[in-house]
Amino acid sequence: MKLAISGKGGVGKTTLAGVMARILAARGRKVLAIDADPDSNLASAIGLTGEALSKLSPIASMTSLIEERTGARKGSYGTMFKLNPRVDDFPDDMGVIHEGVKLLLLGCIPQGGGGCFCPENVLLKNLVRHLLVQREEALIIDMEAGLEHLGRGSTGYVDALIIVVEPGQRSIGTARQIKKLGEDLKIRKIMIVGNKVHSDEERKIIEESLSDFPILGHMSHNPKVLQADREGRSPYDMDEKIKEEVKTILRELEKRI
Amino acid sequence: MKLAISGKGGVGKTTLAGVMARILAARGRKVLAIDADPDSNLASAIGLTGEALSKLSPIASMTSLIEERTGARKGSYGTMFKLNPRVDDFPDDMGVIHEGVKLLLLGCIPQGGGGCFCPENVLLKNLVRHLLVQREEALIIDMEAGLEHLGRGSTGYVDALIIVVEPGQRSIGTARQIKKLGEDLKIRKIMIVGNKVHSDEERKIIEESLSDFPILGHMSHNPKVLQADREGRSPYDMDEKIKEEVKTILRELEKRI
Repeated sequence: MKLAISGKGGVGKTTLAGVMARILAARGRKVLAIDADPDSNLASAIGLTGEALSKLSPIASMTSLIEERTGARKGSYGTMFKLNPRVDDFPDDMGVIHEGVKLLLLGCIPQGGGGCFCPENVLLKNLVRHLLVQREEALIIDMEAGLEHLGRGSTGYVDALIIVVEPGQRSIGTARQIKKLGEDLKIRKIMIVGNKVHSDEERKIIEESLSDFPILGHMSHNPKVLQADREGRSPYDMDEKIKEEVKTILRELEKRI
Repeated sequence: MKLAISGKGGVGKTTLAGVMARILAARGRKVLAIDADPDSNLASAIGLTGEALSKLSPIASMTSLIEERTGARKGSYGTMFKLNPRVDDFPDDMGVIHEGVKLLLLGCIPQGGGGCFCPENVLLKNLVRHLLVQREEALIIDMEAGLEHLGRGSTGYVDALIIVVEPGQRSIGTARQIKKLGEDLKIRKIMIVGNKVHSDEERKIIEESLSDFPILGHMSHNPKVLQADREGRSPYDMDEKIKEEVKTILRELEKRI
């Protein structure tokens, strides 16, 4: 399963990606999680802290390792990967493992005025295209906020794109745009997860506004998740409710893939 | 005053930009507001709806108008603008005016796989650099979420960069990164506005975590602002409290510029 998680900024993409990765890993699945947002923090949503976190370097900076493992020549991420890498092929020093989740960081913005994030997105696109993912394995990509990754086509080769929305017109509008752009990219499965839902009324707002989408489920407005963010911890380690909600979402997802 | 509003996705950049633009326009100032986020909706935060909104086309698509008004040749936004355009120079059909705010839309992502947002950002950078803004005029740019505009240097020529944060480690971490990258770009004034603040304790979290920044003020957690988003209206037209809070923020800003 190759999965990208998308949506407007602040809707909870990283929360969903982190909790989903931890649940699958706890079931014994091999999980490769990629943080593709230079302004995200999937690491802390998975539960990484301190020393392990400091070891995490962006894969885009490891040109010789990428060349060795994938066959992509230095400075030419646009070329086809010569080998089809497998989830296991990424060595531990290319990322870190926490509670069974192997986490890779796509890149960062090292300097103001230093340039755009286009090369990293080409690398991601080729990696997703050529990575061999077995039945019991999962690739989960936490995308950057907004729409530009769709213009770049970085998510063109996923099996499914999950769009996280909250009960507000802006994130619902973003979901509509993501769907349209995702269809341009011929992504077959584009599905919705609601988040920060306070009430049945708010759940209805999402379901009625997006009735032409498959809806996998909802995550409630949850003070424990906010607390996890404030403390830089994983919601998975702090709250049973969010785990149950994401398990329900995963069951729906697995039915549809 | 040339002002850019930045921050992690979902923190409330657009709310601040929209309310600030409306307050300044109500005082009789000339205000040019630019929506630089293809996934934002500054138009509705200013209060534009229906027919007026449908007239809004991205300036990046108006190549002949840009050429005529600014001297930038078609397809070469990277060159210097030959004339220094003034706030008044942008004709009405390049944007729309609502309650005294002239709104321009930088660009959109028209198609999945259609390309990156780099050319639009070069246009923005040159526009900000060369636009002549008088004492009683304001340019307010609602930036895209995250850090990439700083890598691209699109905000390199503003007088001040306001970073919106909420009481959580993620948006505070983003603020630290924006500050570092903004300093690379030699932006002299980088300041904080807190948002979604529920209590004095949360206000303290922001102020203590970012004690090395000037803090302009805070916007409270506000159900009316959420309602405005759900209904696609401007918070300016729905709530007195947010107006008062943004007026206080503006007073602090004007003291420091």
